[in-house]
Amino acid sequence: MKTRVLGKSLPRFDAPGKVTGTLVYAADFSLPGMLVGKVFRSTEAHARLAHLDTTRANGLPGVRGIITAADVPDVRYGGAVKDETVLARDRVRYVGQPIAAVAATTLEAAEAALAAIVATYEPLTPVFDVETATAPDAPLLHPDWRTYTAMPILHREGNVCNRARIVAGDVERGFAEADRIFEHRFRTAMVHQGYTEPRAAVAQWDSAGTVTVWSNTQLPFEIQNTLAEILAIAPSKIRVVVPGIGGGFGGKLRVGVEHVAALLAKRAGRPVKVLTTAEEELTAAYPRQATIVELKTGVTRDGRITAKHGRIWFDTGAFAGSGPGVASVATLVLAGPYRIPNLDLEGHAVYTNKTNCGSFRAPSGPQSNFAVESQMDIIADALGLDPLDFRLKNIVREGDEGPTGQVLNAVGLEECLVKAADAIGWNDRRPGRWRGKGLACGRWTTTGGSSGVYVKINTDGTIALNTGAAEIGTAALTGAAQVLAEELSVDLEDINVVSADTFSTPFDFGAQGSRTAFAVGNACRAAAVDLTRQLYALAAPHLGVEPEACALRDKHVVADGKSLSLAELARLSQATGGGLIAHGTFIAPPTPYDTKRVESHAYPAFHSPSFHAHAAEVSVDPETGEITVENYVVAQDVGFAMNPTYIEGQIEGGVAQGLGQALSEEIVYDGGRVRNPNLTDYKMPTTLDVPRVQTILVQHPSLVGPYGAKGVGEPPNIEPPATVANAIAAATGVRITSLPITAEKVALALRDVTARSAES
Amino acid sequence: MKTRVLGKSLPRFDAPGKVTGTLVYAADFSLPGMLVGKVFRSTEAHARLAHLDTTRANGLPGVRGIITAADVPDVRYGGAVKDETVLARDRVRYVGQPIAAVAATTLEAAEAALAAIVATYEPLTPVFDVETATAPDAPLLHPDWRTYTAMPILHREGNVCNRARIVAGDVERGFAEADRIFEHRFRTAMVHQGYTEPRAAVAQWDSAGTVTVWSNTQLPFEIQNTLAEILAIAPSKIRVVVPGIGGGFGGKLRVGVEHVAALLAKRAGRPVKVLTTAEEELTAAYPRQATIVELKTGVTRDGRITAKHGRIWFDTGAFAGSGPGVASVATLVLAGPYRIPNLDLEGHAVYTNKTNCGSFRAPSGPQSNFAVESQMDIIADALGLDPLDFRLKNIVREGDEGPTGQVLNAVGLEECLVKAADAIGWNDRRPGRWRGKGLACGRWTTTGGSSGVYVKINTDGTIALNTGAAEIGTAALTGAAQVLAEELSVDLEDINVVSADTFSTPFDFGAQGSRTAFAVGNACRAAAVDLTRQLYALAAPHLGVEPEACALRDKHVVADGKSLSLAELARLSQATGGGLIAHGTFIAPPTPYDTKRVESHAYPAFHSPSFHAHAAEVSVDPETGEITVENYVVAQDVGFAMNPTYIEGQIEGGVAQGLGQALSEEIVYDGGRVRNPNLTDYKMPTTLDVPRVQTILVQHPSLVGPYGAKGVGEPPNIEPPATVANAIAAATGVRITSLPITAEKVALALRDVTARSAES
Repeated sequence: MKTRVLGKSLPRFDAPGKVTGTLVYAADFSLPGMLVGKVFRSTEAHARLAHLDTTRANGLPGVRGIITAADVPDVRYGGAVKDETVLARDRVRYVGQPIAAVAATTLEAAEAALAAIVATYEPLTPVFDVETATAPDAPLLHPDWRTYTAMPILHREGNVCNRARIVAGDVERGFAEADRIFEHRFRTAMVHQGYTEPRAAVAQWDSAGTVTVWSNTQLPFEIQNTLAEILAIAPSKIRVVVPGIGGGFGGKLRVGVEHVAALLAKRAGRPVKVLTTAEEELTAAYPRQATIVELKTGVTRDGRITAKHGRIWFDTGAFAGSGPGVASVATLVLAGPYRIPNLDLEGHAVYTNKTNCGSFRAPSGPQSNFAVESQMDIIADALGLDPLDFRLKNIVREGDEGPTGQVLNAVGLEECLVKAADAIGWNDRRPGRWRGKGLACGRWTTTGGSSGVYVKINTDGTIALNTGAAEIGTAALTGAAQVLAEELSVDLEDINVVSADTFSTPFDFGAQGSRTAFAVGNACRAAAVDLTRQLYALAAPHLGVEPEACALRDKHVVADGKSLSLAELARLSQATGGGLIAHGTFIAPPTPYDTKRVESHAYPAFHSPSFHAHAAEVSVDPETGEITVENYVVAQDVGFAMNPTYIEGQIEGGVAQGLGQALSEEIVYDGGRVRNPNLTDYKMPTTLDVPRVQTILVQHPSLVGPYGAKGVGEPPNIEPPATVANAIAAATGVRITSLPITAEKVALALRDVTARSAES
Repeated sequence: MKTRVLGKSLPRFDAPGKVTGTLVYAADFSLPGMLVGKVFRSTEAHARLAHLDTTRANGLPGVRGIITAADVPDVRYGGAVKDETVLARDRVRYVGQPIAAVAATTLEAAEAALAAIVATYEPLTPVFDVETATAPDAPLLHPDWRTYTAMPILHREGNVCNRARIVAGDVERGFAEADRIFEHRFRTAMVHQGYTEPRAAVAQWDSAGTVTVWSNTQLPFEIQNTLAEILAIAPSKIRVVVPGIGGGFGGKLRVGVEHVAALLAKRAGRPVKVLTTAEEELTAAYPRQATIVELKTGVTRDGRITAKHGRIWFDTGAFAGSGPGVASVATLVLAGPYRIPNLDLEGHAVYTNKTNCGSFRAPSGPQSNFAVESQMDIIADALGLDPLDFRLKNIVREGDEGPTGQVLNAVGLEECLVKAADAIGWNDRRPGRWRGKGLACGRWTTTGGSSGVYVKINTDGTIALNTGAAEIGTAALTGAAQVLAEELSVDLEDINVVSADTFSTPFDFGAQGSRTAFAVGNACRAAAVDLTRQLYALAAPHLGVEPEACALRDKHVVADGKSLSLAELARLSQATGGGLIAHGTFIAPPTPYDTKRVESHAYPAFHSPSFHAHAAEVSVDPETGEITVENYVVAQDVGFAMNPTYIEGQIEGGVAQGLGQALSEEIVYDGGRVRNPNLTDYKMPTTLDVPRVQTILVQHPSLVGPYGAKGVGEPPNIEPPATVANAIAAATGVRITSLPITAEKVALALRDVTARSAES
């Protein structure tokens, strides 16, 4: 396809502000007279809140307002389950849970006020892990859960806030057909999204009762709706604006500090800013759930998978949050990207007395994939098969069914696997120890949801694009702008983007789920169709032709050897017709699937699915267990590469984040307390820890995405743990089944092997 | 017509912020790190700028940047004539003309820098009035005017930058048919718009080369285009946002301080705010032009006007500015709202060494109408006719022609005259001296131009209206919102308005010329048609009907006894169709006229014209000449009263402003210097000076306006001077032919009369 703009590695529009430091992030945003808001948090994991005394705090200098549960609407909010309150009312459920909040003239005054608040607790029995939580007679975190409003489809019981299930074929018959059955158990740790900018919000009320919240949310419209619930006012009285956002990765989907800022601003009658610290981020944000995965897989002697029984338990923390949804998506991931006729897959979201977990780039993906793809290598090893061959024998191909019966199109998985293996030198594996190569593959969804855009042509022939989606750092809006530029035959720098303001921009389902470039891009195509029609109608009489004879070429409407520029037509339209303005909307069409296979809020299908294979070569220090990732390859079927550079950026970033989860990151709980709530002890990879990542873009065009594009943002985060685990196993002969795979774990495992060898 | 919202006196949406003082006006707007910008101005009226030394100023503490003509693009800009420069380059043409500008950390530092700048001048012969300026061999303000870019249609000569002319019939034949011919000369003074908020702008550049300007302009898109010329960058690199604006009245149409702020911000690399002082406003803003009007009118013995020769000279100051346009509009006003078969009407805009005049609510209206309607009373008096009867004999009626041959529809003038006269008790005039009643009438245009709107339905069923027009205090956007609410069957408080941002809002010709509610209201109707179509298409299958069977009623789509609320449909659309978003545009259709009657950029026709009659009763102190307006009545044909309260507000405000011009306001020049550049000596009426104004809304629906509405904002400012002059003449027997009609002028005239009576 010959394109003007699309498919080219053009500079992203948000780059200049970001590289020069002039972009105003929400954390930078300030207003005259603004106060500092801080949150008073529980020090107990599970307790009755017996008494709360803010008297002394209230009298301290600089304090302009304190709110407790008694001061805010008595509302339970939440997504699938409405189990949350803004401030703990009579019971606390995790260390770090907000109990009160203070607005003061300075940070020092606010901190002094926090120190002066006295909370008295009466301990309740805590629950710190899913085994305990799901045991019979476990203490209930939410004894009143039956009275909470929740999606009726959820399967809830005790501390389980959802159990999703997919059943296909007959798993018992499948196991009966198998020659061998493998059963394994895996664990993954709680990890933080590691966004550069902490959660931040500034709130200001006007005299008409409208509150404006400048926030670094990924979902301004979601925040608008949640604030409407919390504040008990109409959504249209809530203006959410995203000034700039320093990363989100799913951690900024749900209301974080916006509600606290809004409530404090109302109380104090002045604008209030709330900005979280690293300690608050690591103890009271929305990290990725720790999980336990149990897999039972039946295979024939020649390596055909006949059945799989998979179960995953998400430790969702004190509130349901994203848990029910994440547990649902997990069921699809547990199937792996394989043709398996008999499936029984379950996802459980379980309450414990920890911070409420949330969404993190490909929610459930890395945990499930780590288990599935680790077991694939274990099975291949046991059967004496090459892990690549074993996968190629089982992977889905064009026209195959997904776990719920959806028919798969544009399946580029084989090409990904083969190209990743080639690039890592799969067939050049040396038998030498302490160096090994590993592979993993998967598929992922392109999240649906609505996108609308307003578009206009300026009098200099440039285009204004007005979208409700925020640019969260993925360059997705640059991609969408490239679509618009392509359709209107202008250059990328001719597109001005205005975004993410619930008042002035049209609704968008938001920057989540690898959907922005896909959905906003498609909305841009729809708007461009409308604008083009207007352009032809306007130009035709001046060109002496019928509108049908017109074409768009290089910023001009051309026909019959004559032309008019977009700038001329924009001026003409303003002078004679009201201006060239348009709108366009998009929602992904539903993906048909077999509803009988799906139980209780399971995510039914991966829309416009992407396919990907990762390959790594690692070296391991036999003494210390220290792991070095020497080479890393990603082959990803992106459908159509709108802007190769930025897809590569997404892939490199996703791999770096995935390697952190694979090798070093863990929020360490000791009882109910986080032991490493700082960025020294919570170990994210630095540039020195991340290898050069080779990216291979595979393009099997999707039927729905603009020009065939598929979602690209989340997938690169899925396979790194399994890839690295498999490479480590190849290098060392030891199989680590829990994340992170620290040097300590490897060293200890190697010592066990040595000890066992010595014993035998 | 049964309406839900329209025609009702509902509260305006901008009221809460304004009455509680929480609205952020441009003058309040501030950014972190913002500098103060101040302008160094000429102290000479006409001189060669021999030398400019900023060295010492540059070295002063706190100074962050100084710009002179050498530092800014060498561009001449302007409307009809491009004769302006940002900073004087080699010649100054009025006292107050910007020569340099300073950005500093504080106001004190900026003022110290201004005091340290040294300009050396070589005097040139100044020209201070239109008589001198138009005399043969007058010194030329713009010796190079032939080289300036200008609208080709202008008739330019010497210091005249435009002479517009309308010729209808044969004026000489008309005079020949007359029984009597009356010739009079009138003068009006230079007056300021008196907006509460001085002109203000904050400018900030981003690292991508885009400048954002927060300004209290009435015309963000016009400012965008002018800044593009001045800064020599593309319009789309200029974002103009109107945060709030404390009145404009035409004085904030053209670039005022925005360019200075933008240039200083670029120079200093920091945001800069420029805010004018009262002295700057009264010496170097865009006041209403002083004029001289000469009228020669022929009438038959029984009071039929046969011919009129009218000439008006506008003292436009040092640059053309709005002068050519205002001179053009004047030609239509000089005809008066009368059937006159033979017309020769001329408007001249003349350069002098004064501040550059501009537009002021009904530009040219009060000056021309003062002359026309004063002379009508003089003629009636001379013919022994009742001034009301004389007018009724000559006024235009349905189907009559305007001066340029346009056919007049919806002519409510007779009703206005009769009702105003009734209300003032016209037939109850007492012969007693020192108290008198006066009448005046006129017509005015509804300015054309494009308006576009984006509209969406929020999930709570409320509506977001996105318009490029600013709410300048007229409540016009409340009117437009009422149209949208009516069309969509919602309440006014269900409409959220976002406005006046050249990036995010669609093009609008701007808040000028009584057009906003008219044009934006019509664009809203177009958008509502689109939204309604979408609503019916979405609802129909759920209601089990065809879309054609649907209707909108009370925030619901109804059909066949069933209904779905707008909120339900909005949520449904977001879930299934991309959201309910729409756009609409409007431009007034051209008004046909006889092109042969119009010469050189004359304003050819009054679109959707309004008609109005004012009546006043005044008392005059025979000793001091002090005038008290006892009663005041306005009957105005508004076509359709969208919101009676706010139209009444416009009328009351327009009358107050008109009484100031009638009785007290004048920027007094002495040579080239303003003698009263402060709000003590420049005398605007206070609430104590303004009588209760009785308003009578006459409704002859226009063919084009929404629901028949006509423009309402400017007209109330037109007739007060003539009305009051006629009442004073009735009260005193003396006719004052120059504005303002101060107590001094009346007292002196009364002494003359007394002296003449004594002599005779």
